[in-house]
Amino acid sequence: MTTEFHGIIGYTITPFSQDGEQLDLPALGRSIDRLIDSGVHAIAPLGSTGEGAYLSDSEWHQVAQYSLERIAKRVPSIVSVSDLTTAGAIRRARFAQQHGADAVMVLPSAYWKLSAAEILTHYRSIGAAVDLPIMLYNNPATSGTDMSVELILRIVREVDNVTMVKESTGDIQRMHRLQLLGEGQVPFYNGCNPLALEAFVAGAKGWCTAAANLIPGLNQQLYQAVRNADLEQAKALFYRQLPLLDFILKGGLPATIKAGLGMTGLAVGEPRRPVFGLDEQGRGVLKDLLHDLQDR
Amino acid sequence: MTTEFHGIIGYTITPFSQDGEQLDLPALGRSIDRLIDSGVHAIAPLGSTGEGAYLSDSEWHQVAQYSLERIAKRVPSIVSVSDLTTAGAIRRARFAQQHGADAVMVLPSAYWKLSAAEILTHYRSIGAAVDLPIMLYNNPATSGTDMSVELILRIVREVDNVTMVKESTGDIQRMHRLQLLGEGQVPFYNGCNPLALEAFVAGAKGWCTAAANLIPGLNQQLYQAVRNADLEQAKALFYRQLPLLDFILKGGLPATIKAGLGMTGLAVGEPRRPVFGLDEQGRGVLKDLLHDLQDR
Amino acid sequence: MTTEFHGIIGYTITPFSQDGEQLDLPALGRSIDRLIDSGVHAIAPLGSTGEGAYLSDSEWHQVAQYSLERIAKRVPSIVSVSDLTTAGAIRRARFAQQHGADAVMVLPSAYWKLSAAEILTHYRSIGAAVDLPIMLYNNPATSGTDMSVELILRIVREVDNVTMVKESTGDIQRMHRLQLLGEGQVPFYNGCNPLALEAFVAGAKGWCTAAANLIPGLNQQLYQAVRNADLEQAKALFYRQLPLLDFILKGGLPATIKAGLGMTGLAVGEPRRPVFGLDEQGRGVLKDLLHDLQDR
Amino acid sequence: MTTEFHGIIGYTITPFSQDGEQLDLPALGRSIDRLIDSGVHAIAPLGSTGEGAYLSDSEWHQVAQYSLERIAKRVPSIVSVSDLTTAGAIRRARFAQQHGADAVMVLPSAYWKLSAAEILTHYRSIGAAVDLPIMLYNNPATSGTDMSVELILRIVREVDNVTMVKESTGDIQRMHRLQLLGEGQVPFYNGCNPLALEAFVAGAKGWCTAAANLIPGLNQQLYQAVRNADLEQAKALFYRQLPLLDFILKGGLPATIKAGLGMTGLAVGEPRRPVFGLDEQGRGVLKDLLHDLQDR
Repeated sequence: MTTEFHGIIGYTITPFSQDGEQLDLPALGRSIDRLIDSGVHAIAPLGSTGEGAYLSDSEWHQVAQYSLERIAKRVPSIVSVSDLTTAGAIRRARFAQQHGADAVMVLPSAYWKLSAAEILTHYRSIGAAVDLPIMLYNNPATSGTDMSVELILRIVREVDNVTMVKESTGDIQRMHRLQLLGEGQVPFYNGCNPLALEAFVAGAKGWCTAAANLIPGLNQQLYQAVRNADLEQAKALFYRQLPLLDFILKGGLPATIKAGLGMTGLAVGEPRRPVFGLDEQGRGVLKDLLHDLQDR
Repeated sequence: MTTEFHGIIGYTITPFSQDGEQLDLPALGRSIDRLIDSGVHAIAPLGSTGEGAYLSDSEWHQVAQYSLERIAKRVPSIVSVSDLTTAGAIRRARFAQQHGADAVMVLPSAYWKLSAAEILTHYRSIGAAVDLPIMLYNNPATSGTDMSVELILRIVREVDNVTMVKESTGDIQRMHRLQLLGEGQVPFYNGCNPLALEAFVAGAKGWCTAAANLIPGLNQQLYQAVRNADLEQAKALFYRQLPLLDFILKGGLPATIKAGLGMTGLAVGEPRRPVFGLDEQGRGVLKDLLHDLQDR
Repeated sequence: MTTEFHGIIGYTITPFSQDGEQLDLPALGRSIDRLIDSGVHAIAPLGSTGEGAYLSDSEWHQVAQYSLERIAKRVPSIVSVSDLTTAGAIRRARFAQQHGADAVMVLPSAYWKLSAAEILTHYRSIGAAVDLPIMLYNNPATSGTDMSVELILRIVREVDNVTMVKESTGDIQRMHRLQLLGEGQVPFYNGCNPLALEAFVAGAKGWCTAAANLIPGLNQQLYQAVRNADLEQAKALFYRQLPLLDFILKGGLPATIKAGLGMTGLAVGEPRRPVFGLDEQGRGVLKDLLHDLQDR
Repeated sequence: MTTEFHGIIGYTITPFSQDGEQLDLPALGRSIDRLIDSGVHAIAPLGSTGEGAYLSDSEWHQVAQYSLERIAKRVPSIVSVSDLTTAGAIRRARFAQQHGADAVMVLPSAYWKLSAAEILTHYRSIGAAVDLPIMLYNNPATSGTDMSVELILRIVREVDNVTMVKESTGDIQRMHRLQLLGEGQVPFYNGCNPLALEAFVAGAKGWCTAAANLIPGLNQQLYQAVRNADLEQAKALFYRQLPLLDFILKGGLPATIKAGLGMTGLAVGEPRRPVFGLDEQGRGVLKDLLHDLQDR
């Protein structure tokens, strides 16, 4: 388990046919190549952006296998294996391992709210089923379950292969607490795009972002500026890309990233219903935002 | 579409084998018979209590078909067909219709938060796919999506077969608004157990409850007392059952109802992981609560 | 301490001159006479509606003394003596006692959030300073401090003269808990107008309301209907007045009640700035609402 | 209006006698001298830490006058003049101006929730009454009123002398929006201690903090490190003082700062009741925290 995730971790979309019914794997392949060619440090298939929650089991398997084969170890990969049931998450984690994933990510999705003990057991069961490092993912806005920093650190301590934490609450103070209470020993990653600058300043090892599909250069320059301790440059780079980061978060990642990819020549369809694609007005705003960022 | 749902609408659990892996359909059959024999006015399979969200598609189909065959029109049935995708919800709604359901219930489950337009289109698409009445279900605690009364009434107006509303926010003022803004013409149902008395007083036509698996007599007596305008009796009946209603809500419906059924001689297993069954302390409390209610 | 508060407890406004600078005590006197003539069961000066928080100490004293003299024991009186400091609340409570109040009401106003121990000590100190019954008032929306039912009952148990509870969270389940955990022995009063029906059904002894300035007959008829266990009548009366109750809550009690009094011939000025009086559109709505209710 | 506030803006406490009844102005004087000697860039009397909300009008005037005379223009001063009424805030602002304040700070305190129009008029009225720059202060946790960035910027545009913004919601994204939507032209100041590093990185001109009473050196070193773009140093300094910053926020600023001053030889009494002084356990923690920070 020596793979070290850091820097820009690019999230893939899952392309569909026009009617939303069929997977479009060749388009997925092209989007993966783009991300790698643009210089991302790692790739994460089937996350929130990848609409993993909206796929049938069969589709999920196809996307996982195809993604891993296409990535082909050019960069490290981390596959989101979240499922509402523990058994389902284990099946997905094992599948990812068999097909060469370097790590898996687990969000404790919930219909019925989960207790701390239930969440811990969920991670423990998945941890025992695979030999891969696990990135614990906290995002109450999508999972319905908020894990306290104390619970997160307890899971990290008690489950050997839970070795990374992705924090997406949007509250930078959570990262401060991870750093302080984890005594600087627990690598954490930022999953909230508008916190990109602060998270790196607070010590995040990486930025998990779908923005890398659209503005990979700016994402990486921000990361490098912070590594170079060039605060003025980092701040300028951050505020330059912030309007786009705000827009894709507010507009929904699958809808906005898919629209943006289409504008840059890679047709990947729309999100699966009931989620809408980006509407005309939104497309106009996105086009302007992308234009502004490419000009310079 | 003349079926009139009213009174006590009993929610079924979904029994599993000890390891949580297999369905136990015979036990499901016995629990359905119990509900009907106890006098519930309707039965609702595969709702939140029925762990519908935790079943594979194949399991969901088995439970839906088995439940409808076992109910056998002895009482009206309303099947929860919620799915994260519109296509999935349509498939389930059609399946329910083909197998004899009298109505379907739809919760707008969400991973990515849904806009009003997305929710409306979701209901419209499902409505167009079946000839059954649809009960719109609002429960932000489990769905992650809160529908305003204004949006709910817009859906009722625009989608012909959305004819009933189940409200589970726990805020009685929502029912007041449904009554006022709906001009008394939109039948609404209470899905929040501790509001049973107030909801009936406010005009709810029915009470959607899993408590009917454990204390069907008290549930029905409360309904009758309000219908008889016997306020003192209704109040006494409500406060008598309230501790149990609070307990099953706080403890999680699948865990508490399954434990309670086991205590009364019907083994139905535990909830599917990551959800835990009721722990020893909780079982002790539940036993006492049930004992207190049966004594009298 | 035998005064028993029940039924409709009318809240007075505090009339100002046109520029908001001067008190208009004669208008206050007329509004008190109106309330008493209309049949309210008790009167509560200087509450939220009375803008007690916006008065100087000197003004507060004038209003308290004038109100008590004008009420002249025709009905029981309960004076709100809330102050940000414990010492200030004690001074006001003593003043109220000296001038003949039958009870005082205390909201734990807070700038800095208060702990349970701080709140308890606040009530204990005030309780020790007067020989009057105290109504504990919970309204987090204005005080910034939410007291749990457990804390409320602890205060009632530990401070002898805290004998009544006014609940204004808007959550009817709080009243259920007061009834259950207080074993029916702790008189509670409803301070949330749109919960008037439910609160009485749940066992509230009284309804603390500024609506009695405008529609005292309807308020009292609702109370009587519940006492008579005439559920249909109570429901009809509730839904009839609910639009007005919603309007005065949403529009702000001082602004709407003062506007309404003006419309019915009693000029009482506007709320003190920064709070605005009701705007033209609001006045139109209020006029229609009042007209609808008087017609019948 | 050329005074430029920047850097560390130290907030004063208001010392009381042991029983909390009397002001202790000499102790106030010593605490002001300490702050100035320690190098703070400005001083802010009568803020939240200064318990301004808990003082009588007469006390408020004494503290304001004494503070301004003692500061004696050695550093710029900004006096909090917040009051629940607009008239009261105007009186205080004028008093501050007459006694030599360089600026005033206004929090829109509220008992009744204020609309955007009411808040705007409040600021406009105060702005028209004085010739001083005004710092708009947003802190919903104490004021009960949250101002959107859009409203804040509207006030800044429409009221000439509202020229600075203090943001204390704890959400760093608010500062991003102030920077973006204000086009970098609206100076903003951080009022949330645990966001000290991020706020400076995001562009805050100053840090409004009571911590300067206890660890002024660390506060200023952090500010300088960011100005020097020494990110590693800034991060180290931030995490070093963060446990103390978290502690004083969580424990309540008046209680913790007063206790800390007492530990360092300056007796200033306790907060005014109902707010408690720091308890024994808290004092132990604070002592250790201060010891750790002074050792190095």
